[in-house]
Amino acid sequence: MKRLLVVLAALSLISANAQTDSAQIRTLANEILQNSQTYENLRVLTKTIGGRLAGSEQMYQAEEWGFKALRSAGGDQVWKQSCLVPHWVRGGIDEASVILKTGKRPLDVVALGNSIGAGKEGVTADVVLVNSFDELEAKKDQVKGKIVFYNYAFNNSMVRTFEAYSDANKYRAQGPSRAAKYGAVGVIVRSLSHSTDNHPHTGSTRYDSAYAKIPAVAIGLKDADWLAQHLVSNKTTVSLKTYGYFLPDVMGHNIIGELKGTEFPEEIITVGGHLDSWDNCEGAHDDGAGCVQTIEILRAFKAIGYKPKRTIRFVLFANEENGLRGGNKYAEEAKAKGEKHIFALESDAGGFTPRAFGFTISDAQFEKVSSWRSLIAPYGCSEFVKGGGGADIGPLNRTFQTPVAGLQPDSQRYFDYHHARNDTFEAVNKRELELGAVNMAALILLVDKYGL
Amino acid sequence: MKRLLVVLAALSLISANAQTDSAQIRTLANEILQNSQTYENLRVLTKTIGGRLAGSEQMYQAEEWGFKALRSAGGDQVWKQSCLVPHWVRGGIDEASVILKTGKRPLDVVALGNSIGAGKEGVTADVVLVNSFDELEAKKDQVKGKIVFYNYAFNNSMVRTFEAYSDANKYRAQGPSRAAKYGAVGVIVRSLSHSTDNHPHTGSTRYDSAYAKIPAVAIGLKDADWLAQHLVSNKTTVSLKTYGYFLPDVMGHNIIGELKGTEFPEEIITVGGHLDSWDNCEGAHDDGAGCVQTIEILRAFKAIGYKPKRTIRFVLFANEENGLRGGNKYAEEAKAKGEKHIFALESDAGGFTPRAFGFTISDAQFEKVSSWRSLIAPYGCSEFVKGGGGADIGPLNRTFQTPVAGLQPDSQRYFDYHHARNDTFEAVNKRELELGAVNMAALILLVDKYGL
Repeated sequence: MKRLLVVLAALSLISANAQTDSAQIRTLANEILQNSQTYENLRVLTKTIGGRLAGSEQMYQAEEWGFKALRSAGGDQVWKQSCLVPHWVRGGIDEASVILKTGKRPLDVVALGNSIGAGKEGVTADVVLVNSFDELEAKKDQVKGKIVFYNYAFNNSMVRTFEAYSDANKYRAQGPSRAAKYGAVGVIVRSLSHSTDNHPHTGSTRYDSAYAKIPAVAIGLKDADWLAQHLVSNKTTVSLKTYGYFLPDVMGHNIIGELKGTEFPEEIITVGGHLDSWDNCEGAHDDGAGCVQTIEILRAFKAIGYKPKRTIRFVLFANEENGLRGGNKYAEEAKAKGEKHIFALESDAGGFTPRAFGFTISDAQFEKVSSWRSLIAPYGCSEFVKGGGGADIGPLNRTFQTPVAGLQPDSQRYFDYHHARNDTFEAVNKRELELGAVNMAALILLVDKYGL
Repeated sequence: MKRLLVVLAALSLISANAQTDSAQIRTLANEILQNSQTYENLRVLTKTIGGRLAGSEQMYQAEEWGFKALRSAGGDQVWKQSCLVPHWVRGGIDEASVILKTGKRPLDVVALGNSIGAGKEGVTADVVLVNSFDELEAKKDQVKGKIVFYNYAFNNSMVRTFEAYSDANKYRAQGPSRAAKYGAVGVIVRSLSHSTDNHPHTGSTRYDSAYAKIPAVAIGLKDADWLAQHLVSNKTTVSLKTYGYFLPDVMGHNIIGELKGTEFPEEIITVGGHLDSWDNCEGAHDDGAGCVQTIEILRAFKAIGYKPKRTIRFVLFANEENGLRGGNKYAEEAKAKGEKHIFALESDAGGFTPRAFGFTISDAQFEKVSSWRSLIAPYGCSEFVKGGGGADIGPLNRTFQTPVAGLQPDSQRYFDYHHARNDTFEAVNKRELELGAVNMAALILLVDKYGL
């Protein structure tokens, strides 16, 4: 009987907790949906600063903006954590054109991030099309002195578009060096997208130091289709002009706001996005969205008077796009100071309607967070899945085995905008952006209240 | 032992079925995601025909287009089902402006559908703002000879935006007559939206025959906010010009394509959307999307060689927006012919990423469809919920108790576009539109194979 009473008491406690949690999350959601500053913050970041690649003047402007925004949102402390970041510059306006008897046919291209320029005269050479690395190997004797065109298509049948991105990403990352290995002098990569427009999508490439560094561009999808079709029956010469180079590393910063925990201040929860973006766009979905959501969670906690038990850090990470120095620095310093990081959450998949959280976490921890699913599902994240996190919080996970999670918004539109000139403020919907913040805030609240 | 064997045999049959179903749905999804004509069909409907209100010339053009599209998608039979439809015309360019000492301040407005025009001279009167019907009742002695401005805001804290629509819709539907009851001469309704722009959103109003019919417009949200603010400290006169009137009913048509069932041809499954749209937009999300998805399911079934057991009807309904005559006619004729309608599915909530199906269905039937959830979830509709259907298939449900369901795509952007001039082709994402068709096709396939 006594045992039954204990069980009943425990059950009623759980039920009472669930009611309190549910009401608290509703309050938080109302605060964000009715008084949010996410959209206005995003407008300022994207429209008054714009693209903000590591090392650029805009990086410093964005740091100042982020510092002020976290302060005005109500951080107990806000500081800048210094870290050296690479300083790649595009150096000019990337161009490519097909040389025809009748004149030139321009192609819409953008140099890949971290790629080397094509020199004063540019590179002019015949094009060899390959649809895959297997085809490259089969044609390896034909590519010397040529421009290799990787025309590997984004796989439309993959419903989760990040799978299509992972699948195609190797051509952007490894394509230049694998072509250089056989003597190619330049590379054109089909943009990693399934959009209906012709905007080219940049992103980092990685040279293998064993081979020559050759210029490399991404090409818009319509031009890629045109070029592939043209190549069927024409020997095709393309002229490439790119100007990329590296300047010495400069000092950049992670921008960190903190709410000190009232009961377990030594237990740290991190939530963040990355402040840098590519230079050819406004970086609205990638990752202005994650930054303004992070700031909003802090603002909303303060606005509803929530006093966290644990210490919560709101972090705008530096240099995710072409170096990950911010994320690495954050984990290094945490290790050096012996900090205890119990959880980290990142939003870096666009400001779209939230659908899921993906967790890299132990089975027991996954069971615990899954018990909260019904509290969060009404706001969008009705699925809690294993696997996921974020580039910037990866180092925390690798250093401390810190449980990490990533917000997984609807992914259908992300690669229409990702790293392309149309990743602008106008491409973000206010409600979708805000709901992302609501779901993240709810998860952080529950981890704060109950630990992991 | 024998019993165990029977159970095991049954289980392995279920498992084998599930595998077959899963593979068949994957084939269907690949066909749609790789070869879909939804997007191109939507472009033609919206860009070459555009708005297509019942009775308009564009209604007839859209009927011809739909007939040809269903034929070319492969219907065994395609026919037009005649039904009289109302013929409301806007009659001119709706205008409103605030009369200031310094001149006129224009307001972005659109006359409500089915509303009466303001006469040659228009209506000019002072404005009384009310935030609710309760406030109207409280101010009933002040509205005689005035224009009533219903400024009831869309409830942002409702995560499912259709709930906010249902909540606010009474002001558009009943507002004019409830104000006329107290002698008002005109009505301005805050648009049923939470968008960030100023486009006004039309939609039907319903006059109560007990009171005078007075002109009524919807106003854009920014102008609504401005007007409300202006009224705080200013007596405000507004001039309204609208020109709406009814012509006699004309003959419109439901456009119906059919695949005849091979085993149970007398059992009919209906899938559809509505072909009409408001005249002030291209009707892309509402409901061009539902139409092209319907056509695509037919095309995809034919393309993969699927021969349905039951008869499947692909229906583009007439006159959903301001009469529902198409949906009513479809059910009436079904009754007159003694047809057996076992299921109907509608897509009329926009061409956004599919998230759920909502069913109006018995408990036993809900249990049956729920057993298919895991087969469809990978494509987007991870939630099967009770309640839902569609306006055009409502009459089937009321006549035969036919189980009905509605596709429930993500709803965050719908009321940014709904009945407003920005409901254009450009507002629809190709992948999101196609995924809607995939999920609908999968559900129709399962109902066809296993009945209900």
